[in-house]
Amino acid sequence: MYDFRPILLVIGVLLTILAVAMCIPAGVDLYYGNPDWQVFVLSAGCTLFVGVILILSCRGFRGKFGVRQGFIMTTAIWVSMTVFGALPLVFSELNLSITDAFFEAMSGITTTGSTVISSLNSAPPGLLLWRAILQWLGGIGIIVMAISILPMLKVGGMQLFRVEAFDAEEKVLPRAAQMSAGLTLIYVALTAICAVALWLAGLRPFDAITHSMTTIATGGFSTYDASVGHFNSGMVDAIITIGMIIGSLPFLLYVRTIRGDVGALYHDSQVQVFLAVAASFVLVAAAFLWIGQSMHPLEALRHSAFNVVSIMTGTGFATMDYMLWGSFAAPLFFMVMFIGGCAGSTTCGIKIFRFQVVYAAARTQLRQLLQPHGVFIPYYNRRPIPDEVIVSVLGFFFLFGVTFALLALGLGMFGLDFITALSSAATAIANVGPGLGDVVGPAGNFQSLPDGAKWLMAVGMLLGRLELFTVLVLLTRSFWRG
Amino acid sequence: MYDFRPILLVIGVLLTILAVAMCIPAGVDLYYGNPDWQVFVLSAGCTLFVGVILILSCRGFRGKFGVRQGFIMTTAIWVSMTVFGALPLVFSELNLSITDAFFEAMSGITTTGSTVISSLNSAPPGLLLWRAILQWLGGIGIIVMAISILPMLKVGGMQLFRVEAFDAEEKVLPRAAQMSAGLTLIYVALTAICAVALWLAGLRPFDAITHSMTTIATGGFSTYDASVGHFNSGMVDAIITIGMIIGSLPFLLYVRTIRGDVGALYHDSQVQVFLAVAASFVLVAAAFLWIGQSMHPLEALRHSAFNVVSIMTGTGFATMDYMLWGSFAAPLFFMVMFIGGCAGSTTCGIKIFRFQVVYAAARTQLRQLLQPHGVFIPYYNRRPIPDEVIVSVLGFFFLFGVTFALLALGLGMFGLDFITALSSAATAIANVGPGLGDVVGPAGNFQSLPDGAKWLMAVGMLLGRLELFTVLVLLTRSFWRG
Repeated sequence: MYDFRPILLVIGVLLTILAVAMCIPAGVDLYYGNPDWQVFVLSAGCTLFVGVILILSCRGFRGKFGVRQGFIMTTAIWVSMTVFGALPLVFSELNLSITDAFFEAMSGITTTGSTVISSLNSAPPGLLLWRAILQWLGGIGIIVMAISILPMLKVGGMQLFRVEAFDAEEKVLPRAAQMSAGLTLIYVALTAICAVALWLAGLRPFDAITHSMTTIATGGFSTYDASVGHFNSGMVDAIITIGMIIGSLPFLLYVRTIRGDVGALYHDSQVQVFLAVAASFVLVAAAFLWIGQSMHPLEALRHSAFNVVSIMTGTGFATMDYMLWGSFAAPLFFMVMFIGGCAGSTTCGIKIFRFQVVYAAARTQLRQLLQPHGVFIPYYNRRPIPDEVIVSVLGFFFLFGVTFALLALGLGMFGLDFITALSSAATAIANVGPGLGDVVGPAGNFQSLPDGAKWLMAVGMLLGRLELFTVLVLLTRSFWRG
Repeated sequence: MYDFRPILLVIGVLLTILAVAMCIPAGVDLYYGNPDWQVFVLSAGCTLFVGVILILSCRGFRGKFGVRQGFIMTTAIWVSMTVFGALPLVFSELNLSITDAFFEAMSGITTTGSTVISSLNSAPPGLLLWRAILQWLGGIGIIVMAISILPMLKVGGMQLFRVEAFDAEEKVLPRAAQMSAGLTLIYVALTAICAVALWLAGLRPFDAITHSMTTIATGGFSTYDASVGHFNSGMVDAIITIGMIIGSLPFLLYVRTIRGDVGALYHDSQVQVFLAVAASFVLVAAAFLWIGQSMHPLEALRHSAFNVVSIMTGTGFATMDYMLWGSFAAPLFFMVMFIGGCAGSTTCGIKIFRFQVVYAAARTQLRQLLQPHGVFIPYYNRRPIPDEVIVSVLGFFFLFGVTFALLALGLGMFGLDFITALSSAATAIANVGPGLGDVVGPAGNFQSLPDGAKWLMAVGMLLGRLELFTVLVLLTRSFWRG
């Protein structure tokens, strides 16, 4: 019924890239004299083998590439990257179980940042680098996906960001490749700048590179158990805070800025609202730290800015255990978790533009109700919002709520307590990283969760990363019929 | 700008009814020889005085009654009933503070059922009866409102239930009065049947009457600290379970059934889905009790049916502390809290028809996406759903989520722990009753919460009861402009 060859071809190409990427940690481990380099070479071999076979057997395809193929391909890419990305974790000296390795790889590829590894400080450098690479690849992957495929699939209002170049369905793949190159260049440049800044701020080159990769990808894997709190440096906190914000803005606007449209970022309403929302939450949390916990105002602002931005953008770094900030912290961070950054960035969560669309639609509806004979049109970024987008966006909120509730319920059934179950469900579906409470909060990790809960969370991460609908649609009868 | 006289007139009439209602507990207290009867006479006097003044000063009105007046009136009615309904609680021998009395009255009028009174067993009978009367009046109040006013205000998709008789805006008030009479008759009859059944099952007449009033109103105020668990009778549990289900079905369908349309309830898709959803959750919880807690299957089914139906319909009775059912209980009950019953019943929460509308819309959208040239129309109860209703319903979900999050955040800021803050916010906005956890769970009550949290919860109850939008619209600039 469906032609799977174009999908397998793309996966083959991406697996080949993944195999090449595995050679980097192999080299690093070899340099540090760590025997784990063999693990990466072995994994790269397996991955390359499968990738090349797929390319050879599916090349030369010239058929139609439709909406259904788009849905299947998107999910298949993320799952296959996770499976092969988990190989080095399974074989490494950490001896992770299949479950733990899959969880960690999914958390990496989806830029979530939840970890099951409780001894990062003593983990081999190649493995730490591999975790950063997984997030970094996942970050650029979702940017390309959000611009090329998701608007075509009309997922959760993403059709608002349909780039005209992609309008002809047949040419999606070559054009996506062309645009990807530009975006990747910017992505590499931003990562490099961030790495240099961190290095100048005093970090070892290895820490600077790994942290800049997981910062720009808003991933949140650190190389230390204490996360960024390990460095205990205001300058490092500031750089990473800015880096996380940079990773949360629409990358297409960076392209425009470079092409000469200097005001592109400044004039984008999503960027404006994102910064305003982030600033508000940072100030609220800082005020609580200052007044409630008697922290020095500047210190309060530093920790508030870092941790609130980290959770809101779904990065997941921490400089301290904010569960100790008082009773306001848990509900605040719980709420902030869901917000996310801008569409077309590396962030996950609900995302700012959806709140803007709903606000605009609500305003219009209200005025229409009060003045039945007037004509009111909702706008986003100075353009009218089609009805279809409003329904799409509202449907996303609904789907998000239901998926979250079912995930929390499932985690509760595996024996997790209330705050652990709810915050784990939220952190998975919004791709944040740490949860809340003693077990999975910023001072804990996901090691102690039962295997079933880890699998469930991995599914949640995948759902959240691919805007829910992309994956859930594959479970409907309508999709496979006719 | 606005003509407030019709609003004040209606409030005057309702206050007069409230004053008359206060004479009943006065009589009961007099019968039992309790000095509190003076409290009720005094309160009735105050209320009657204000009511009569309002009627006298605003009668003879023949002007236009529009959408704006509808919004203001709805909120004003609920607030004024709460204020005057709280009078006997303030003056009673329990010596409740203003905050506690307002909280308890709001919890009554909105049929929530959360209580701040921790010594119900020794409370004066008049006061216990008054709490039941508040819920009972609140129950019939919302039924009339849901049929007469809310569809006109197009709140959260309620326009689906626009009764043709009410289509002409000018005649809303007289027709509402006419239909209210029929609905009130059925409401009284159902309460009486339930009371007789409870009496036959062995309850004292006083307990039978108070519990039947709060059962049919899906309110949940009991006259004992251990709620319905106090009676420890399978028969009582069964009667109240059925009573809560009866209170959760659309009352207009009872009218139709009596008028000869015998299949009205049976053929209504909302009723079907409500029963199916309730049955599913009951079976899931019973299975967990049976397998996880080694409870006897029938015993498991009895407690599961009672407590799940009680929380899902927002009644809020309990037969035991379900927080002890294992870790699955908290997320399960947390989720069930939000569901609610049918539109046009005494229940609150999201309500079944909204899930049906979203499901139908999602199905249609998906088929449209996969077959762009087909024409697909979403149906509810065998009638096409207008686009406007879909947006309205989806907007309700969004508003519900945001209001819940802000409420939980606010409660957290007053120092409540995570499970207490989240479940209190949920129980308030969905008008359920008990929360979750040690403090506000089925074995606890809301006495120990700080005053600010109680006020916040009272606001949440009002918002939830009036379908959010009705109240929130009063806070917008657009509403008061032009």
